[in-house]
Amino acid sequence: MTKMPKPLYLAAGAYTMSLGTGRPEFNPRVARPGLEHYIQEVGRDVFAQIDDPETIDEGVIGNFMAARFNKQGHLGSLMTIAHPSLEYKPMIRVEGACASGGLALATGIKSVLSGLAESVLVMGVEVQNTVKAVYGADILAGAGWFAGERKEGGTYFFPQKFSDRAGAYGQKYGVEKSREAMAHWYATAVENARLNPLAQEHFNKVKDLLSQGLTPPDARTFCEHINLFHCSKVSDGAAAIVVCTKEGYKRLGLKRKDVIKIVGYGHATANLTAPPPDLTELTTSRRASAAARDMAHISTNDYGVIEVHDCFSITGMLSLEALDLAAPGQSMDLIAAGENKRTGRFPTNTGGGLVGYGHPTGATGVRMAVDLWKQLTGKAGAYQVPLKQEHGIMISMGGNDKTVVSLVVKR
Amino acid sequence: MTKMPKPLYLAAGAYTMSLGTGRPEFNPRVARPGLEHYIQEVGRDVFAQIDDPETIDEGVIGNFMAARFNKQGHLGSLMTIAHPSLEYKPMIRVEGACASGGLALATGIKSVLSGLAESVLVMGVEVQNTVKAVYGADILAGAGWFAGERKEGGTYFFPQKFSDRAGAYGQKYGVEKSREAMAHWYATAVENARLNPLAQEHFNKVKDLLSQGLTPPDARTFCEHINLFHCSKVSDGAAAIVVCTKEGYKRLGLKRKDVIKIVGYGHATANLTAPPPDLTELTTSRRASAAARDMAHISTNDYGVIEVHDCFSITGMLSLEALDLAAPGQSMDLIAAGENKRTGRFPTNTGGGLVGYGHPTGATGVRMAVDLWKQLTGKAGAYQVPLKQEHGIMISMGGNDKTVVSLVVKR
Repeated sequence: MTKMPKPLYLAAGAYTMSLGTGRPEFNPRVARPGLEHYIQEVGRDVFAQIDDPETIDEGVIGNFMAARFNKQGHLGSLMTIAHPSLEYKPMIRVEGACASGGLALATGIKSVLSGLAESVLVMGVEVQNTVKAVYGADILAGAGWFAGERKEGGTYFFPQKFSDRAGAYGQKYGVEKSREAMAHWYATAVENARLNPLAQEHFNKVKDLLSQGLTPPDARTFCEHINLFHCSKVSDGAAAIVVCTKEGYKRLGLKRKDVIKIVGYGHATANLTAPPPDLTELTTSRRASAAARDMAHISTNDYGVIEVHDCFSITGMLSLEALDLAAPGQSMDLIAAGENKRTGRFPTNTGGGLVGYGHPTGATGVRMAVDLWKQLTGKAGAYQVPLKQEHGIMISMGGNDKTVVSLVVKR
Repeated sequence: MTKMPKPLYLAAGAYTMSLGTGRPEFNPRVARPGLEHYIQEVGRDVFAQIDDPETIDEGVIGNFMAARFNKQGHLGSLMTIAHPSLEYKPMIRVEGACASGGLALATGIKSVLSGLAESVLVMGVEVQNTVKAVYGADILAGAGWFAGERKEGGTYFFPQKFSDRAGAYGQKYGVEKSREAMAHWYATAVENARLNPLAQEHFNKVKDLLSQGLTPPDARTFCEHINLFHCSKVSDGAAAIVVCTKEGYKRLGLKRKDVIKIVGYGHATANLTAPPPDLTELTTSRRASAAARDMAHISTNDYGVIEVHDCFSITGMLSLEALDLAAPGQSMDLIAAGENKRTGRFPTNTGGGLVGYGHPTGATGVRMAVDLWKQLTGKAGAYQVPLKQEHGIMISMGGNDKTVVSLVVKR
């Protein structure tokens, strides 16, 4: 695909707080909000930005595991509670593990390109705090090949998988140096989260984040090559944004300055039952983001702002390499130099990302698009960065680099 | 939408046996095939029909509750095991309870209309026999509003919901007459299944099906207004078909006579948290199928073959009314006259439908499309019906008439 077949836009974004143990609002003694609450809260915030709710033609919702966390399927039908105008419209739930939000965006894009819709409400939601983290880890292992590889994973399946990647990366490029880069990643994530009132780490007051990030991994209590600070957090939350045509955003009552253009799109899927070809690379992320970049006809120098899927610090580092911002093994230098910080060359995960904001799995891909939209329209508030370039890119990744959706957007 | 934006086709369909207690192959003493088996079996049968597997651009898979039946999410990535050519292509799982298969078709349609794909492999799968039926009923209750209405449902949530519909229908239009119609529906379903070697009721040898269907409901052991014969069966199975452009099916090596044209499409979603506006009508099914019929510019006299979602006999009856084949309360007369039989005016669920073939939930909507394709291309074997009209219509329904996708197809 040489070019996006017709001009598409992202408009009217919103996301909720990422609720988890890092928030004072997280209270184990009271019933916490359910899926219904988050769908309605984020729906309210989107519909407050648009003139005529009837101009939303369709809805798509990304969700990973409400079936187990909440015993709830059929979220397309549940999504209608976001606004009465959605009743009887086409609604669908899509899923691709932690890339469910990215797939929701892809689905919205295709709906608009199909000509069957002009404006599609794209939402993502996950409510995970219904079970203890140890049970949650088993649920999330359904993003891997459960029948085939679950037994390998121990208690914490995905942390173990990415610990293995961190171990392989360290062995190849230097254990100490890679741990330092992971610690820098963590520190930057929390620094960014402190500027984002919706982030789970917003109230984190730790003075020496770097030392904390360097805490030696303990295989007896967690994993061999990563510590808890290098993990994204168990979170409840939702995000939503509208994918639309030019005519679509005008009918929503919005102006060009309120929206951003989608100029590139890539989607790649690897075999769930096969091990990654190389533990030190995100092969599928590389393919999807290269496709998005090719469609957008831009180079790696054109990114003004970046969103990557740092489910773990190591994944953030590998994502920068998958984006060709650094050769294999060299993202560590960029990170040590602070190039991914808000003051750096390519501000990355400016609202905190998965490590700092949190990771309500089905919502995450959509939250990324909302953060790009906030930055490129100047709506990011305290965490707004001065833009040096007009483009943004995101990688929404599911499982161990198995499903990846990448978008390139433009101010 | 006045017309399908560009000509679309269905090609190379296949489905597996519906495995459950009605099959001699169903053996409780041996490990039964998993999701992987069904995805590969149906994939093999589709790819055997096409020349160049690389001409499949994308994949979409409908599945309802593998998250609970099999602890497996991320089925888009798992779907790549259907054929090596799928690796790194865009794959997605979609879900809308028992309409998951219908939503997979809708997603394939939009992908092709978007111009991003020429041929999309659309699959559906469900493996439910991993748990006892009583636990399965709780899992399937996730198609309703779990947090809000699950407690109302008793042990068998959905049977109870449709028993309530059967009760309301009987009260309005005659208890005895409606039970007779339900018994006729059951008898026809088994008669059709006896001609379909893949159907779960294929080996059913009962002589007096009508009397069996008239067994009085027993509220103490099951439900007040329906008996077990009026339920679709717990099933494992998969179905797949290709949605493509004209150029697409040519590149697959197929001819016009091997494919059918998609001429109408409708998709409507009702609020999961609200009770149905009328227990004696399928309001959402009516809307979706009317939209499909309008797009196809045909009348109710044009259906040569029909597929409806008879998760229960009563739902089949209500579906004929939703299709405007009969006024409210009058489908009973058509059924008593055998108009829905293979020899009747509009042969319905010719391969057995959900009651006779079985209901592997995520696969069902796709299986319907495959049965329409088989009938309209003359590939239905022993259950082939002589076609009096060129069109077929299907209704894929999820939950209590909450998500509905309807397609109109043409020889």
